[in-house]
Amino acid sequence: MRWTRTFIPTLKEDPSDAEIASHKLMVRAGLMRKLTSGVYTYLPLGLRAVKKVERIVREEMDRAGALETLMPILHPAELWKESGRWDVYGKELFRPVDRHDRPHALGPTHEEVITDLVRREIRSYRELPVTFYQIQTKFRDEIRPRFGVVRAREFTMKDAYSFHPDEQSLRETYMAMHAAYTAVFRRCGLHFTAVEADSGAIGGDYTHEFMVLAGAGESEVVSCGCGYSATLERAETAPVRPEAGPQSAAAMEKVSTPGMKTAEEVASFLGKPTSSLIKTLLYDAQGETVAALIPGDRELNEAKLRHMLRVDAVTMADPERILEVTGGPMGFSGPVGLEGVRLVADSRVEFMHNCVVGANEQDCHYVNANLGRDFEAAQFGDLVVAREGDPCVRCGKPVSIQRGIEVGQIFELGTKYSKSMKAHYLDQAGQERDFVMGCYGIGITRTVAAVIEQSHDNNGIVWPASVAPYHIEVLPLNVNDEPTMRLAEEVYESLTASGYETLLDDRDQRPGFKFKDADLIGLPFRVVIGEKALGEGKVEVRNRKTGETTKIPPDRLLEKMAALLPEEVREGRAHN
Amino acid sequence: MRWTRTFIPTLKEDPSDAEIASHKLMVRAGLMRKLTSGVYTYLPLGLRAVKKVERIVREEMDRAGALETLMPILHPAELWKESGRWDVYGKELFRPVDRHDRPHALGPTHEEVITDLVRREIRSYRELPVTFYQIQTKFRDEIRPRFGVVRAREFTMKDAYSFHPDEQSLRETYMAMHAAYTAVFRRCGLHFTAVEADSGAIGGDYTHEFMVLAGAGESEVVSCGCGYSATLERAETAPVRPEAGPQSAAAMEKVSTPGMKTAEEVASFLGKPTSSLIKTLLYDAQGETVAALIPGDRELNEAKLRHMLRVDAVTMADPERILEVTGGPMGFSGPVGLEGVRLVADSRVEFMHNCVVGANEQDCHYVNANLGRDFEAAQFGDLVVAREGDPCVRCGKPVSIQRGIEVGQIFELGTKYSKSMKAHYLDQAGQERDFVMGCYGIGITRTVAAVIEQSHDNNGIVWPASVAPYHIEVLPLNVNDEPTMRLAEEVYESLTASGYETLLDDRDQRPGFKFKDADLIGLPFRVVIGEKALGEGKVEVRNRKTGETTKIPPDRLLEKMAALLPEEVREGRAHN
Repeated sequence: MRWTRTFIPTLKEDPSDAEIASHKLMVRAGLMRKLTSGVYTYLPLGLRAVKKVERIVREEMDRAGALETLMPILHPAELWKESGRWDVYGKELFRPVDRHDRPHALGPTHEEVITDLVRREIRSYRELPVTFYQIQTKFRDEIRPRFGVVRAREFTMKDAYSFHPDEQSLRETYMAMHAAYTAVFRRCGLHFTAVEADSGAIGGDYTHEFMVLAGAGESEVVSCGCGYSATLERAETAPVRPEAGPQSAAAMEKVSTPGMKTAEEVASFLGKPTSSLIKTLLYDAQGETVAALIPGDRELNEAKLRHMLRVDAVTMADPERILEVTGGPMGFSGPVGLEGVRLVADSRVEFMHNCVVGANEQDCHYVNANLGRDFEAAQFGDLVVAREGDPCVRCGKPVSIQRGIEVGQIFELGTKYSKSMKAHYLDQAGQERDFVMGCYGIGITRTVAAVIEQSHDNNGIVWPASVAPYHIEVLPLNVNDEPTMRLAEEVYESLTASGYETLLDDRDQRPGFKFKDADLIGLPFRVVIGEKALGEGKVEVRNRKTGETTKIPPDRLLEKMAALLPEEVREGRAHN
Repeated sequence: MRWTRTFIPTLKEDPSDAEIASHKLMVRAGLMRKLTSGVYTYLPLGLRAVKKVERIVREEMDRAGALETLMPILHPAELWKESGRWDVYGKELFRPVDRHDRPHALGPTHEEVITDLVRREIRSYRELPVTFYQIQTKFRDEIRPRFGVVRAREFTMKDAYSFHPDEQSLRETYMAMHAAYTAVFRRCGLHFTAVEADSGAIGGDYTHEFMVLAGAGESEVVSCGCGYSATLERAETAPVRPEAGPQSAAAMEKVSTPGMKTAEEVASFLGKPTSSLIKTLLYDAQGETVAALIPGDRELNEAKLRHMLRVDAVTMADPERILEVTGGPMGFSGPVGLEGVRLVADSRVEFMHNCVVGANEQDCHYVNANLGRDFEAAQFGDLVVAREGDPCVRCGKPVSIQRGIEVGQIFELGTKYSKSMKAHYLDQAGQERDFVMGCYGIGITRTVAAVIEQSHDNNGIVWPASVAPYHIEVLPLNVNDEPTMRLAEEVYESLTASGYETLLDDRDQRPGFKFKDADLIGLPFRVVIGEKALGEGKVEVRNRKTGETTKIPPDRLLEKMAALLPEEVREGRAHN
């Protein structure tokens, strides 16, 4: 393609609403333009990169035996009411109403649609397992769209749904999808990690997120050198038994802590470490009030509290409820003498002695409160948010926390949808059974952004060959010099004919301007054709990533490119 | 692909809501399933056909120099208000509202989005002309979705938009698009005709529709052996001067026509031909009341009336208005003595003598009314709907009328959108000028239906190779016979390796059942492997279209297929 015949509107300035590198660069390099909040038009260069990712995803899904379909964007509300998601999905669901006042959803995912199809079309265990996928535009009415296509309202996603006779068959497909996802993200040139995750509102028991590690990511990933990794929400923590033996229990005493509000303030006022204080947090767990005890220097992980209590939602109790239950104001709750409330505690609390706790009374705390003597807890478990340096639950070494962009997620859904939507098959004995289901998503446009987030420098994008819009840019320094342009055209034609996707910058612009744009759009290799090198019978080949430049005779160029960019590199089966 | 590993849910019965062959067959052959009214899921076989059409469209668009983009489905209402279409598009536009109560449109076409992009990004005549296209899901809230994907609410369309400095440049691109569309539909194996059309609400001056002639089509096409063709709405008609000279004008007389309502009833009651009656139709033309006179045996073409009056809309006057203007009830209007109303007439009225006209009085008509003596008309022109046998406006021979499916349309939009949306470029003299625009659409999913509509028989689809989901079906008669299956696998592998998309029906079913399905899904060729022919060292090759069957040794199969299905046939550059 010739630059003058396509449309690559590069910009010198970052767009004012862009906070992260991929967003800035996708706009500056002319890959896309914003239409409205969280909604983008893909321009020719950007669409080529999107299609590269789509192709890799399609190849790996096909290889894994998944069947490509295309499901509608418009879903009738009835289906969503059947699954129960109509009421729980909230404001992120676009709900257009048609001319007959019938409500619809714009699909953010397609569990209902595929379950409806399968319950109508598949009757027998003999037709199982089966996995369907699609690459389709999805909609999510984000409260605050940001980071370009990373958190957009309209985006492209690959979603897949598998149907099984039993859990074992599901687990086999789950592992096959795990392997396919690993292949996809490797081929895209990403550094990523598959982490254990919490299943959230979509339901299901077992799930992994594929995280691309990037400082600009919105998710936090806990990981350890031993291979353990999990989302921050999901990451387990293990208490460390203090090396010193149990301290002798001192006498409990009520003390005044006037005006001290946070755990840090109270501890500091009393001249004790924050870690010797126990926070008592009151929650409403679907009707029941529960007090959760955690060390003063930790944060409560609500997902873990939900799991421990086996409820779908927990919300912090309001001040009125706290007063009613504890007799004291919010901020001074404590376990001593607390009755009529279930007390649960983080496992670390078992090893704490002579603690500071709230006294359920304005500006009062107890010191030297001790579990077993002064208060009890009904249940112990992991209730806190993991933090950097916590011992790994698998190997005990300190974990680290990094930021990541979630590019894919795989779920074992089980029978959540098949039960609610009455999707049955007949087993070998002729018995009706619920389909066991899995679902598997990849953010296609988000993956393009993640590639850029991980692979760029101050001058622009540094595309891996497998996702690059073109492989090679041919850059004649002076388009008005006839020998230069003749050679440029020859080189362009021969590279193109040899299967390299080539962009010829045939613009009549200064070399510096063209170099800047070449760095910005970041194709893996650049072939510079200038009068000086031509005088020596040479052209210059520059590697965008390493900056390495070599001069070679034009008739050696194909040989050189065959070494630098063999087919396995262009297809992402290997990387250079 | 093996049948048992994909998903082709064929049906014996036609779906109850299907009226036309393509709809029936797309469901029965397992290409798609309905999710809700006018909204379909494409199953693996259907999606493959859709992608074949997409690929052909993409190749021809790229060849014509159009640049592929992907524009959003969600459009902010503001843009549609700028163009003015927000108020005129009516109920066919889905208008979802986001969480902040901001109205949006689900794009049925993308003139606003592309014009907004271009006015921001393109400043100079040097960057013109430029053509952008996309293949995207479109939405239209049809009042009565029917005919499967032919009139759907969600469908796939290729839309392209071109921007020019002047009309001449637009006409060049328009002709290039005309040629590209011709190539696309030829490659899809369609019999079609490009007809002059009316531009309707989208605006613009010059437009052609690409019509696939099919009895089930919703559009009517007027055509003549001389090459003239046009949509029924657009088709011009020419009056035929009667061979006999003017008759002598008889004395006008008011007669009673009690209870006679239609033109036919009145004429018959008076013992005169319907063609001797003049219908007087009162219209509201954007505030002005107009009376249109046409022969009693013709229908008024409102598009022609609009054009004659140079207004955007005409609506029939209501009874109150008719009483007010004519002094008589609806159904008895006539031109004699009619004042304060503009009278326009079809050219045929000029040649009519001694006519029957309404008397603007209940149950009364005049006979022997004559133009020039008893009434006048301000303007004459072509106002009637063409009909079979009318003389062609070009050559005078009788035209014929056929039904067709509109699969594509090209428009010269001119400056309609660039004016309303203030989209300007700077010309060579540095003057701001409105972009001159064209737009070009192809219904991708509708094209698949049109192919089937034209190419099927009583047993199922008869795919042209270029759009077929697979090229060849390998059909082993008995999958439990080991030599049969060994050869079937060999044949399947060798055909696939040679570039033929091959489907192996490896189901353990009776031959008759498999033959029926093979006819139904209609792949161009079928290779039958049975014990009897195998005994003779032969396999059977059957052409789905001609039914021709030949027995050949398996080692001659590749050679045979190379002759029957060369690459140019598989890609639609030729047809067999």
